[in-house]
Amino acid sequence: MFAVIMAGGKGSRFWPRSREKMPKHLLDIQGERTIIRETVDRIRPLVPPERTLIVTGRSHAAELIRQLPEIPAENILIEPVGRNTAPCIGLAALHIQKRVPDAVMLVLPSDHRIGDEITFRRVLDAAGKVAAGGNSLVTIGIRPTGPETGYGYIEQGDPFPAGGDGEIRRVRSIREKPSLEQAREFLRQGRFLWNSGMFVWKASTILSAIERFLPELHAGLLQIREALGTEREEEIVGEVYSAQKAVSIDYGVMEKAEDVLVVPGDFGWSDLGSWDALWEISEKDGNGNVARGGLIGIDAFDSLVHSPGKLVALVGVRDLLVVETDDALLICRRGQSQDVRKVVEILERKGLKEYL
Amino acid sequence: MFAVIMAGGKGSRFWPRSREKMPKHLLDIQGERTIIRETVDRIRPLVPPERTLIVTGRSHAAELIRQLPEIPAENILIEPVGRNTAPCIGLAALHIQKRVPDAVMLVLPSDHRIGDEITFRRVLDAAGKVAAGGNSLVTIGIRPTGPETGYGYIEQGDPFPAGGDGEIRRVRSIREKPSLEQAREFLRQGRFLWNSGMFVWKASTILSAIERFLPELHAGLLQIREALGTEREEEIVGEVYSAQKAVSIDYGVMEKAEDVLVVPGDFGWSDLGSWDALWEISEKDGNGNVARGGLIGIDAFDSLVHSPGKLVALVGVRDLLVVETDDALLICRRGQSQDVRKVVEILERKGLKEYL
Repeated sequence: MFAVIMAGGKGSRFWPRSREKMPKHLLDIQGERTIIRETVDRIRPLVPPERTLIVTGRSHAAELIRQLPEIPAENILIEPVGRNTAPCIGLAALHIQKRVPDAVMLVLPSDHRIGDEITFRRVLDAAGKVAAGGNSLVTIGIRPTGPETGYGYIEQGDPFPAGGDGEIRRVRSIREKPSLEQAREFLRQGRFLWNSGMFVWKASTILSAIERFLPELHAGLLQIREALGTEREEEIVGEVYSAQKAVSIDYGVMEKAEDVLVVPGDFGWSDLGSWDALWEISEKDGNGNVARGGLIGIDAFDSLVHSPGKLVALVGVRDLLVVETDDALLICRRGQSQDVRKVVEILERKGLKEYL
Repeated sequence: MFAVIMAGGKGSRFWPRSREKMPKHLLDIQGERTIIRETVDRIRPLVPPERTLIVTGRSHAAELIRQLPEIPAENILIEPVGRNTAPCIGLAALHIQKRVPDAVMLVLPSDHRIGDEITFRRVLDAAGKVAAGGNSLVTIGIRPTGPETGYGYIEQGDPFPAGGDGEIRRVRSIREKPSLEQAREFLRQGRFLWNSGMFVWKASTILSAIERFLPELHAGLLQIREALGTEREEEIVGEVYSAQKAVSIDYGVMEKAEDVLVVPGDFGWSDLGSWDALWEISEKDGNGNVARGGLIGIDAFDSLVHSPGKLVALVGVRDLLVVETDDALLICRRGQSQDVRKVVEILERKGLKEYL
């Protein structure tokens, strides 16, 4: 089994720590290790570094190599521009197929948080076996813990194999991020899982699916395949990417394909998508505070303080997200961290590049 | 006329900007100039640098000299330990009397904010004339703008001179910081002024009053007078100070003396005693925010941001005091900045000297 880690994210929601040069997955937001470091370490018992590929943008490759010295340089795949997940996965599939024609590939986002790593690997292993045994597109669904509107949902259908009594099911439908009302209805119905963005399939299977549902992308991938390992590889990848539309694998393939399976998982998953999410999943002190860096709290509750190396005193405040870096400071009401993107937009509009 | 600026304050309420080594009056909290710089500049049309004395602690003298190069070094008087205002004023009176036996001295705190400097100087000039013409202790009273509980109050009595129709009055009583109820009653009665801590008198007059009401202090001052200008001056000042009790001129003299006059003033006075006070007196933007340093506000109101050199983004917050320095960050609910002292107490208790 190969692993493909998609590390193309910008992570502007983690401003001011995340920057154009330093997206979320390259940061140690949650602990000692950076998020990509944790992701690589987590799958290592299943997939060794030689079979772990990372797809990223040119400006982040050097930092990735620095953080992950055990990953061979040829396993870092550069996307000249971001075109969402479908081209990214297609490009990785080409590389894997070239090495081991019938390999199974595990596709993972770079920036998730997993609470229970043992169960996580057990689920991936089971999904890998199913993928290896046929030509299904296998996705990992997360048992929802609430009516989240920030995630897509997967509707489970019949058991797989037919008449079986295991947990694997056929996918009946894939739904975009719902309204709160819809999300509540999904939870009530009980057969919906969160779409984790994690997939397992044979490289040949996903390339066939791309050929069927995204023929323009497939044509581009064929051009790239011809150029792989030649002097013209970088040039051709650049041409193909610039000609592609951005399309997600969910929208482009998964929602249309028929032989899609879902393996449910229950391993403390979070997409760690915002400072709010970080507070939610972090262990709190007796006052509900989460502090990275020294904190002196006086009448201070339910707040996140991310200020490595600077003492922070909170007096008479609650429900704040406080994030401090060398050149910028964010103070955000807890529950409103989706608006951090607006700060980044203002910085872009004002041309304040040094803060981006 | 001589001026004496009392610069012994610690200003822990302005933590984290104010530190043991850098009390409030040495900081540029409000504008371009430091507070002591503003104080000296403000009186300069009345009192030139050669006649301006500054009383301070040993650890702040070098910084004072750096900030105020025009003040002659012999005008910087060092107190070996702080003993509140009575010894400070007595020491300054000795020095002044030695130079000009019958000089009038104007006593000013180092850290006040004055909105209308022209009126301020006019009031001081009037007070100086009254002080020069007799043996009264003259104090400056501020017309109250609200029932402040953080200030002392001066009760006005009969006009001075008797039967006159000017604004100068005899002082009937001096009151410590009142309860809110008392403060409201003071305002209702209309004859109370805030005690500004600014005084004008002859050096000889205040020394006589100290002799009468604080005989132990006076005895010590006589010892110091003998030693002034000799090799033993520093040693004797040290001995005398260590033997004195801390006592304020208000409690030790003004509340007991009979010939006390008050000149009312109305010149935008504030003791600038806290981050809350700084927000109150500062010009706000359309959202009620006061920013020193770059501010990006999204749904952010009525806050103070003091972060020279670092960009601050406020998202979804209101009524915050945000103060950022190289090594510490304070985030305090507006209206609660008196509790900043508690932070300093905790730092002292924990032995975190580097933040004090």
